[in-house]
Amino acid sequence: MVQLSAGQYSLVFNMLSFAVASMLGAFAFFVMAQNLVGLKYRASMIVSSLVVLIAGYHYYRIMGSWQEAYTLSNGVYMPSGKPFNDAYRYVDWMLTVPLLLVELVLVLNLAKGKTGPMLVKLVIAAMLMIGLGYPGEISSDFGTRNLWGVLSTIPFLYILWVLWTQLGSATEVAAPSIKSLFINTRYLLIATWGFYPIAYAIATWGGPASGSAMVALQVGYSIADVLAKALYGVMIFAIAHEKSRLDGSLPALKDA
Amino acid sequence: MVQLSAGQYSLVFNMLSFAVASMLGAFAFFVMAQNLVGLKYRASMIVSSLVVLIAGYHYYRIMGSWQEAYTLSNGVYMPSGKPFNDAYRYVDWMLTVPLLLVELVLVLNLAKGKTGPMLVKLVIAAMLMIGLGYPGEISSDFGTRNLWGVLSTIPFLYILWVLWTQLGSATEVAAPSIKSLFINTRYLLIATWGFYPIAYAIATWGGPASGSAMVALQVGYSIADVLAKALYGVMIFAIAHEKSRLDGSLPALKDA
Repeated sequence: MVQLSAGQYSLVFNMLSFAVASMLGAFAFFVMAQNLVGLKYRASMIVSSLVVLIAGYHYYRIMGSWQEAYTLSNGVYMPSGKPFNDAYRYVDWMLTVPLLLVELVLVLNLAKGKTGPMLVKLVIAAMLMIGLGYPGEISSDFGTRNLWGVLSTIPFLYILWVLWTQLGSATEVAAPSIKSLFINTRYLLIATWGFYPIAYAIATWGGPASGSAMVALQVGYSIADVLAKALYGVMIFAIAHEKSRLDGSLPALKDA
Repeated sequence: MVQLSAGQYSLVFNMLSFAVASMLGAFAFFVMAQNLVGLKYRASMIVSSLVVLIAGYHYYRIMGSWQEAYTLSNGVYMPSGKPFNDAYRYVDWMLTVPLLLVELVLVLNLAKGKTGPMLVKLVIAAMLMIGLGYPGEISSDFGTRNLWGVLSTIPFLYILWVLWTQLGSATEVAAPSIKSLFINTRYLLIATWGFYPIAYAIATWGGPASGSAMVALQVGYSIADVLAKALYGVMIFAIAHEKSRLDGSLPALKDA
């Protein structure tokens, strides 16, 4: 832990609070918006709500840990001696990344018998990605961070490749009004997931003793989490809503 | 209480937080997923939600007790003098294990008149199992821990034997798509319940003065609780959902 300026400390603190507020709002939205999709798409909405509830809990904890890790003295924030708990993010990802995969695969409506095996492969890859990233995250050694970062990138690329091609095939057979939603979801996925390795790389190459590299990491992860969980869930909702309208599973919306 | 390394202390702390997050997510899931099962299976879902709500409360308390029981000094965690409260787990089990039994027996849909008597026998056995385990848990004497541990194992084996045979008979008469769910539930039950005596035995045989034995106990119980309560509830949901689909009690899912 290194000393931070008041601006650096507050930037991270306020980003964490922004994430808590976003997750809380998203949770309320996904709970209530279940009434706006047909019964067969509700499982996907429920999973979206679990993702942001669990993330909201962790961001609340991360805020507390951030506050305890520093003490204000003469206008700068000095390490208090209590460690900042990096593990909250990794525990969060262990729970929420598999759920994010379930959310997408459910809304893709794959052929019977294909959903299960694909999810198993994706979830195993997700566990490897997160598990391999953690030893690097808690290390302050440049070589160690790079090694685990590169290893973690292999399952990361595998997951993105599977989702990219699956969203591609889903787009081909989709109704016109759903096509553009699938295309947007595909780009959102690449754009938000891409944030994580970039934030990790900045913290690695910026040096562990650099306050600004650590601030960049925390801010980067927070923005990425809000987009990859809350905004992504809204996209999944939009797809489910449009599908419900088209297939008549929400009769009241038939001519909306 | 013995001194712990920073890694040992954090491992237990993060496992406890993982359990809080899992129970919270599972609670939200069981509340919302009631809409995805027919009315006659909702009692079982309600009971699942109570189990994880009560467990979530206790894990939140256990986290607090863990934090208060240690103080960080020169990079190691020393006992603060405040006792770590083991009783939370036993109070939790007194409430949740009978509910877990109700949850399973409800979804088995036994012949009329059989459910009540079986539940009475199982709940009495559960109370004996938990009550006999506690004197051993709070003792640091090797002989005392072994004696109560063995006594507690007798009702433990009785419960597992009853559930194993009941799940076996239910499997025989079930529709093909439910058969595999029952089989998986049977294995999940053995695998997760098996964790508890193993964690207890490690703490007994590793010696009460050993930090790593205590860490193994806390981590083992936390993993076992998440699997035996949250994941097991998801299995019960899957059975109820599939039954509802087949018997037409959820018309909208009939052709899903």
